Amino acid sequence: MSDLPTGPVPDRLRRWELYAEVPLLLASLLFLAGYALFVLTDHDARLWRDLGLTLVCATWALFVVDYGVRLHLSGLGPRFVPTHGLDTVVLLLPLLRPLRVVRLYTAVQTRRDRPRLSLYARVMAYAGVTAVLLGFSAALAVYQQERGAPGTSIRTFGDSAWWACTTLTTVGYGDAVPVTPVGRIIAAGLMACGLALLGAVTGSFSSWLLQVFRREDEKEPPGDV
Amino acid sequence: MSDLPTGPVPDRLRRWELYAEVPLLLASLLFLAGYALFVLTDHDARLWRDLGLTLVCATWALFVVDYGVRLHLSGLGPRFVPTHGLDTVVLLLPLLRPLRVVRLYTAVQTRRDRPRLSLYARVMAYAGVTAVLLGFSAALAVYQQERGAPGTSIRTFGDSAWWACTTLTTVGYGDAVPVTPVGRIIAAGLMACGLALLGAVTGSFSSWLLQVFRREDEKEPPGDV
Amino acid sequence: MSDLPTGPVPDRLRRWELYAEVPLLLASLLFLAGYALFVLTDHDARLWRDLGLTLVCATWALFVVDYGVRLHLSGLGPRFVPTHGLDTVVLLLPLLRPLRVVRLYTAVQTRRDRPRLSLYARVMAYAGVTAVLLGFSAALAVYQQERGAPGTSIRTFGDSAWWACTTLTTVGYGDAVPVTPVGRIIAAGLMACGLALLGAVTGSFSSWLLQVFRREDEKEPPGDV
Amino acid sequence: MSDLPTGPVPDRLRRWELYAEVPLLLASLLFLAGYALFVLTDHDARLWRDLGLTLVCATWALFVVDYGVRLHLSGLGPRFVPTHGLDTVVLLLPLLRPLRVVRLYTAVQTRRDRPRLSLYARVMAYAGVTAVLLGFSAALAVYQQERGAPGTSIRTFGDSAWWACTTLTTVGYGDAVPVTPVGRIIAAGLMACGLALLGAVTGSFSSWLLQVFRREDEKEPPGDV
Repeated sequence: MSDLPTGPVPDRLRRWELYAEVPLLLASLLFLAGYALFVLTDHDARLWRDLGLTLVCATWALFVVDYGVRLHLSGLGPRFVPTHGLDTVVLLLPLLRPLRVVRLYTAVQTRRDRPRLSLYARVMAYAGVTAVLLGFSAALAVYQQERGAPGTSIRTFGDSAWWACTTLTTVGYGDAVPVTPVGRIIAAGLMACGLALLGAVTGSFSSWLLQVFRREDEKEPPGDV
Repeated sequence: MSDLPTGPVPDRLRRWELYAEVPLLLASLLFLAGYALFVLTDHDARLWRDLGLTLVCATWALFVVDYGVRLHLSGLGPRFVPTHGLDTVVLLLPLLRPLRVVRLYTAVQTRRDRPRLSLYARVMAYAGVTAVLLGFSAALAVYQQERGAPGTSIRTFGDSAWWACTTLTTVGYGDAVPVTPVGRIIAAGLMACGLALLGAVTGSFSSWLLQVFRREDEKEPPGDV
Repeated sequence: MSDLPTGPVPDRLRRWELYAEVPLLLASLLFLAGYALFVLTDHDARLWRDLGLTLVCATWALFVVDYGVRLHLSGLGPRFVPTHGLDTVVLLLPLLRPLRVVRLYTAVQTRRDRPRLSLYARVMAYAGVTAVLLGFSAALAVYQQERGAPGTSIRTFGDSAWWACTTLTTVGYGDAVPVTPVGRIIAAGLMACGLALLGAVTGSFSSWLLQVFRREDEKEPPGDV
Repeated sequence: MSDLPTGPVPDRLRRWELYAEVPLLLASLLFLAGYALFVLTDHDARLWRDLGLTLVCATWALFVVDYGVRLHLSGLGPRFVPTHGLDTVVLLLPLLRPLRVVRLYTAVQTRRDRPRLSLYARVMAYAGVTAVLLGFSAALAVYQQERGAPGTSIRTFGDSAWWACTTLTTVGYGDAVPVTPVGRIIAAGLMACGLALLGAVTGSFSSWLLQVFRREDEKEPPGDV
């Protein structure tokens, strides 16, 4: 689930990660933009589709380079692959990159030294942003699979985004549903991730609300009026 | 998410907030009533519709005045806008006003000095009331969008209220579903808010139940029979 | 939400509650059985329907007597009504009686003095049993409303029970859905109660599982093999 | 819910359980494989179906032997049945065996003495694996009931697996739904178990995320850059 307990991280690797994190996140956003361009533009708009495809390939190459550099710097050799499971998965399925967004947050925070949000607010923000990005990626991927499939109920990207919303929140109306096998596998993945992430949002919000009400109690007894 | 950590609040602002809160909440309820009147009455009943519209505009003007006064009293100048995110959103989308209902509760409590409910009961009450008010607002807004749309399954306000119920609880039967883009955006907003609020209700109820059963344990050991 | 904080309870009232609880719960089960008999038997089977109706009326009379006795013994006079909200609701809508099942549990436990279940197991059992009884009551009530309604998808009691299952768990397939206004109001009530109760089951199960795994940790370090 | 509090377990029984656990789990997997073979192969492929049926019967016989040995070794006589509720249920409905998967985990861990996962990760892994296995079993059982039923929407095993996914996550689109009574009873069981298990996954993930973010806080204050 996490690449946290990897023992003492070599200094060079740490420095690389610190400096590479922001560029890599920008690359992730470019990857997503390129994929969106590729999926959403008309079949006739060759130019835009080619641009999208180029962005996807170029950023993917960057991810491979980063993975290679970290594998080298870690000094772990082939043992790097099993101990960095999330990194490996994310290399093969770059649409899951949002799962690493927490890293950027930390990197940005460390640099700016701004007062941080409260613990619950941060977990909500992280889980919420990740859920939205995953939902957008899933909506794109499902749209690519489903448009044109016989008997599908997902005809426009709007339908696909609506489907992603109803799935992430587990409402599941059933008015827009994937029918192709690949679409359904993507949907199952979104359900699993979405459930866990939204559970985290819900749980943190609940804890945060309790905290606010409790703090209020402590403030008022001294008699405010 | 919150306008809590805004540093030392000037005394004048605090006093304004204390005295304005109850009138503003009444204004919020009038706003909702006016909007309901506008949406639910027949197209022919010009008089009622005009009354509703007037209520909506008058109360909205009040909200603008309140926002302006608080911006002025805070002494923050334009910095007030980003640091009071929820206030600004609520000014632009007054249907979200219920999210501030917690303020009224505090104000009323402080004045009456009645014994308060337990912490969990208060969180449940707050989240529950907010969810019901948001659900009612969403049902009105979706009904306004959907009635008359081709192929819609929301034909009466009853359908719309039923849709809001099934959405807030994430049951999502799918027998009444918005089909227009605006309707779906409102629905997505309701899902996001509803999920968090109902998660808070559920979590508090669960904690409250555990507390009740635990207390019972402590009471009985001394041998009651 | 609860009739807990009613101040010092007179001794006579306490004794009445202790002795009346088990008979009243049996009466509740008879009420449910009578209602089921009334709803589920054929229109031609006059005898059974009459028996069901008689049971319903007789047990309801018992509930009224109990309420009256407790109102009298409490010495609160008319103030009894607002401070015992749940009792009053349950008197008017006896199908909600399962919500008081926790009382019986306590009464039985106190008498038998058996080793109790763990805290989480008890909350799960209480919330689970309440949810099942409420689901059964709702299935009966919805079936009574919906059978025969034009365009309904709930034609047999099996459909109604299936609907109650999918609603309580918030799955909501939408293949069996109430269409009459009264049916939908009952459904909304079931959603609200079911969500809170099942949230309590889920939360307790989760806490219980964590407890079991944690205990396991503590047991094993001393080296078991 | 659990066979934990059964008092002092005889040493012989403990030793039996320690050595029998892994073979029994392999038998459970073989049972599932045999059942899958029986359900999924064509009606004409007599040979494969017979092999599946043989596997099912042979492994079931093993479960009966294990139950008998444990009943004997426990020295409890007939009192073993009520105090080992889960064991008894699992003997009669071997498809529920995954619920005991936690045992294997413990057994394997105790032998290998590898550093264990964190508490939350273990609960997530246990609940997640159990949910997946139960979902697979339910998909097989529902497929066996539904294929060929008139008016069913579950025609292939793919539909059934998709139905299990949408049910376990409580999304419930309603595009694939059991219509036979037995199929619906299996579905209700899956909903009940799935809800509790996924609640545990969600809750643990939420707690784990909070823990990770909290740890991060503690790490950084000393000034990392």
